[in-house]
Amino acid sequence: MLSTTPRTTLGRKKHRAVTDRSVLYDVLDEGLICHLGIVRHGVPVVLPTGYGRDGDTLYLHGSTGAASLREAARDLDVCVTVTLLDGIVYSRSVNNHSMNYRSAVIFGKAAPVVDREPKMHGLEVLTEHLAPGSWAHARGVNAKEFAAVSVLALDLAEASVKMRAEGPDDEPEDVEADAAWAGVLPVRTVFGEPEPSADLSPGRPVPAHVTARAAAGR
Amino acid sequence: MLSTTPRTTLGRKKHRAVTDRSVLYDVLDEGLICHLGIVRHGVPVVLPTGYGRDGDTLYLHGSTGAASLREAARDLDVCVTVTLLDGIVYSRSVNNHSMNYRSAVIFGKAAPVVDREPKMHGLEVLTEHLAPGSWAHARGVNAKEFAAVSVLALDLAEASVKMRAEGPDDEPEDVEADAAWAGVLPVRTVFGEPEPSADLSPGRPVPAHVTARAAAGR
Repeated sequence: MLSTTPRTTLGRKKHRAVTDRSVLYDVLDEGLICHLGIVRHGVPVVLPTGYGRDGDTLYLHGSTGAASLREAARDLDVCVTVTLLDGIVYSRSVNNHSMNYRSAVIFGKAAPVVDREPKMHGLEVLTEHLAPGSWAHARGVNAKEFAAVSVLALDLAEASVKMRAEGPDDEPEDVEADAAWAGVLPVRTVFGEPEPSADLSPGRPVPAHVTARAAAGR
Repeated sequence: MLSTTPRTTLGRKKHRAVTDRSVLYDVLDEGLICHLGIVRHGVPVVLPTGYGRDGDTLYLHGSTGAASLREAARDLDVCVTVTLLDGIVYSRSVNNHSMNYRSAVIFGKAAPVVDREPKMHGLEVLTEHLAPGSWAHARGVNAKEFAAVSVLALDLAEASVKMRAEGPDDEPEDVEADAAWAGVLPVRTVFGEPEPSADLSPGRPVPAHVTARAAAGR
């Protein structure tokens, strides 16, 4: 079950809250970027960042939005949100237009991962989330890179999922009036054809872990 | 030109900052959801929210993440971020894996729009961003709905855009070694086939403003 602390209890539309932990995992595993929120000099800062999940730990990559993550590493509170947009809901009334979506919100303190073994594991989780198969295929992290990169870990203890996955919710009188179209326009994130780097050796094929992903879409 | 206050000046990789205001507009106009950050009880809260842009004003819909927006309406500082993910960058080394993206970050105070004419205008901007053509097609906002909905406006004075739009940035020795594939896997957000509501009158066609959007993709 997901936690229901005051921060993760929805103030309205409670039927859209989801308390099944597997849904949290699904949203986090399907998303590609998160939005990391911190407080800096008293004001909110929200930056897009790569992430990856292993069990109940969310890893954040320190090389994106570096200044923010350095501050987060000083034991600042963070809020990490991953949103998947699934559709535009066209209703018979302007007011009932909406979106279908799945959104995970996680509160906690992001701690820097410093010891060698867990930090290398965090880098593997981050890499495999961003580019499945790349950890085995690409050249590994050398000592200089390992020292320069930073990895943060955030526990998934205080997390909530909110979603909408349904057709238009029109007023009975608008359905009766039958004066406008209503329905859902699905929104999907898809992969295109791989674009090989121009400086690859001639004839090098696109490896299977990339072609498979491109073919599967999301 | 975009502002370069300390908050919007990048701490690293300055070559990725964009100071052309038209790029800011493009990112905001292409995105469908924003991530709204506020500070609540001293900690950051980041929630996905619908928005729309008119000139240098960003409108936020008060019916999503309601508790947060009610607090924002009490003159709290907000940070609004819109991120478009354009590609996964596969490099010859794990460490140089990256993402191609365009991201707009806006700081400011979101003010509630209360007067009738500007509030109705804000609702039109929000509706036409979410579902172009729906303001004219769907039943308009009635008095009860108008009173219940809230619209916030945020000035685009303090905004920055950051982007990456290039191939892998590999070390010369990794290019020379030629031991791994490198390239970009494009990521796109697309619309699917419209799904009409089951309770429409039989034979009602999908209107042109919806079919055109589905066909155009993004």
